[in-house]
Amino acid sequence: MQEVINFIVNNQDSYIAELKEFLRIPSISTTPENRGDIKLAAEFVAAKLKNAGMSRVEIMETEGHPLVYGEWLGAPGKPTVLIYGHYDVQPVDPIELWTDPPFEPVVRDGKIYARGATDDKGQIFMHIKSVESFFKVEGSLPLNVKFIIEGEEEIGSHNLEVFISNNTELLKCNAVLISDTALYDEGVPTLTYGLRGLAYMEVEVTGPNRDLHSGTFGGTVGNPINVLAMMIAKLHDKNGRVTIPHFYDEVLKLTKKEIINIKNLKLSEKKYAKELGVAELEGEKGFSTLERIWARPTLDCNGIIGGFTGKGAKTVIPSKASAKISMRLVPNQDPNKIAKLFAKHIKAIAPKSVKVNVTNLHGGLPALTPLEDKATVAAASALEKAFGKKTVFIREGGSIPIVTEFSKKLKAQVVLMGLGLNTENLHSPNEHFNLNHFKLGIISSAYFLKEYSL
Amino acid sequence: MQEVINFIVNNQDSYIAELKEFLRIPSISTTPENRGDIKLAAEFVAAKLKNAGMSRVEIMETEGHPLVYGEWLGAPGKPTVLIYGHYDVQPVDPIELWTDPPFEPVVRDGKIYARGATDDKGQIFMHIKSVESFFKVEGSLPLNVKFIIEGEEEIGSHNLEVFISNNTELLKCNAVLISDTALYDEGVPTLTYGLRGLAYMEVEVTGPNRDLHSGTFGGTVGNPINVLAMMIAKLHDKNGRVTIPHFYDEVLKLTKKEIINIKNLKLSEKKYAKELGVAELEGEKGFSTLERIWARPTLDCNGIIGGFTGKGAKTVIPSKASAKISMRLVPNQDPNKIAKLFAKHIKAIAPKSVKVNVTNLHGGLPALTPLEDKATVAAASALEKAFGKKTVFIREGGSIPIVTEFSKKLKAQVVLMGLGLNTENLHSPNEHFNLNHFKLGIISSAYFLKEYSL
Repeated sequence: MQEVINFIVNNQDSYIAELKEFLRIPSISTTPENRGDIKLAAEFVAAKLKNAGMSRVEIMETEGHPLVYGEWLGAPGKPTVLIYGHYDVQPVDPIELWTDPPFEPVVRDGKIYARGATDDKGQIFMHIKSVESFFKVEGSLPLNVKFIIEGEEEIGSHNLEVFISNNTELLKCNAVLISDTALYDEGVPTLTYGLRGLAYMEVEVTGPNRDLHSGTFGGTVGNPINVLAMMIAKLHDKNGRVTIPHFYDEVLKLTKKEIINIKNLKLSEKKYAKELGVAELEGEKGFSTLERIWARPTLDCNGIIGGFTGKGAKTVIPSKASAKISMRLVPNQDPNKIAKLFAKHIKAIAPKSVKVNVTNLHGGLPALTPLEDKATVAAASALEKAFGKKTVFIREGGSIPIVTEFSKKLKAQVVLMGLGLNTENLHSPNEHFNLNHFKLGIISSAYFLKEYSL
Repeated sequence: MQEVINFIVNNQDSYIAELKEFLRIPSISTTPENRGDIKLAAEFVAAKLKNAGMSRVEIMETEGHPLVYGEWLGAPGKPTVLIYGHYDVQPVDPIELWTDPPFEPVVRDGKIYARGATDDKGQIFMHIKSVESFFKVEGSLPLNVKFIIEGEEEIGSHNLEVFISNNTELLKCNAVLISDTALYDEGVPTLTYGLRGLAYMEVEVTGPNRDLHSGTFGGTVGNPINVLAMMIAKLHDKNGRVTIPHFYDEVLKLTKKEIINIKNLKLSEKKYAKELGVAELEGEKGFSTLERIWARPTLDCNGIIGGFTGKGAKTVIPSKASAKISMRLVPNQDPNKIAKLFAKHIKAIAPKSVKVNVTNLHGGLPALTPLEDKATVAAASALEKAFGKKTVFIREGGSIPIVTEFSKKLKAQVVLMGLGLNTENLHSPNEHFNLNHFKLGIISSAYFLKEYSL
């Protein structure tokens, strides 16, 4: 094993040079004019997988951008790992804020700058290079490996979802390994074992049958904006708890071990507030900031609009006002059930002076991997060996819908072994990736293949 | 006097024919392409005043559209009435909803249809014709009369305000007579003796220093939309009263006589709600709908915006959210004082998790004419004689800023003797004016000149 690691360390320069090639391809998935670059990127990935030693590599067409599939099944009796990542990237706007052109990768202070560096080209490349190193040194892998690398992650992964449903036999595996999340902090080996779900609603309040003059009618009718504001205000109590009846019924409490883990991370709430430019944090009473993000369901307005929103004054009572309101969910809350509770509650608190319409726009399941799962234990151990430090276990406040697709459809454990940092400007100008993490990521990936094979 | 009235009645057809000429001029004040029509309308009014018998008629240039001034001061020792109106009209959009072209007046079912019919060409024309009838029959007027007819009412009357300030001697009078409001109902002689004032504010709430991902940060920071909604909700108590400290301190209570007047109007709240398409009315507890509109200060959101307002879902916690919030004021509330109380209160209820910025966008004084004023008594008596019914006294929930300018700068009583109806589509397609009211308006105007001269 030490030889594999040495090989990885010794080949850093050429690995980085190859990553730069990958980063030069402007594979933006959302813009039609980059269709050719998407194809180039898929071919690049396929060639790299082939070159790494995968026995079967195929570009799979979809109704959208192609998927790249790779496999090496030369370890009968050993577990199979499916490694997922994406070769597509976000757009580059606002282009004027980039220090260097987004598709001309530059290394500065141990970081590589380019669109897609951390999200997700740099991270998927770690696994390709760990596999390649294994093949080069040992001629084989310690277990069976499959790759599925998509080109539509930044636009919703719809065609991958379809593909998973139709190809559960092809993708069959014991664990899914994903590097598309972040370390807790620089140099801290991290596993993400929980994600929040989502219930995203729209509420439209209709008052009078037309816009009214606020002088002639002000004070006599339910004003849709005021009513909507009142209803939104009623969704939290004074302790920051969501007031929807039965909202918390299915919420899984943090275990003692998790509470201790979180305490040990010693998040500075002062620093957190300062970084966001706020004088004070705000959230559910009785929980720390990390507990609030990772293990508590929350409710936020994501948008609101009604009446006159131009410059100056217009004395109108609008006929309608509407808001987008989403709830982040935690295990074991169910998005559909929560959406129904929300709609019922909103209607219950609406005054008779208005009509209320509630739409369920979008939902996603929360996810939680038991810390005792075999693949999780192997990943924790792999990270620890690579970093020379104890692995920390974190959750993530957001949702990665594809994770629940993998675990539901393939019935496999999902390991989120991200090597990015939340400060690496993913989706913003000057995206970058820490090259020390890139190296440690390749090493962690190699250790994982070994540990999980045992 | 009966001869004057007979003359008016007998000359209806030619008066309506002349009104049609006036209505054919598309004197829209807001559009530069109608500049020439504005000039035409001013000249038309000047010619009609001259023709009516006014001894001095002058078109007064301003920085905007011209004012038309007229006077006849042949009754020394008698009071002087200043009659105000406007010759400009609103735009015609949406043009496709007009049954007939807006500047081709048509008479149907006793109503004349055209842009400006009720607002305000038809109404100012009543006074020109009452003066003319007096001159034709008696060769003189029973008191001194001045006219000031502007071309910028629909765009804010700014240049008239300046003109009043600079010409208080020219405009000096005992009473200002204005017909630019509405009757309480069809065929009901009405005097408007009170107007609400206005304090129009903008509140901007800033939370985090950038838009945040609602998954990664949801539940840890004050969300500007939720905070703004909470603050708006707090501005009313459960009885519909505004919670701003000292908000009601200066509110003049309705007199017993006013309360009885309002009761006698027997407004059907059921019909009112039905016309607005709402299942239930909503307002300050303990007051009827007319009391709420006319004599109680109110607070309404006129606009709100924040976060994602497009189609679909975006999981953002916005950095900012803002609302336009206006308060209708009643005598003796002061807009500046109320604006300060509002700003102070908003800041007091804002949580420390956000910054709040409050702007005073616009304000206007409420107005109230004592029912015992000589001009008001004369106007009530004039209307009663013309309609053959007791005059009702109403207030108006909106504001007419020029009214307070006249009363403050000229120290004259203002009489609001409007002959329109709120259902006559002013500012909307198919604007019209009831021709019976037109006739009764000319008669009322003539009676007023007589009554007020005694």
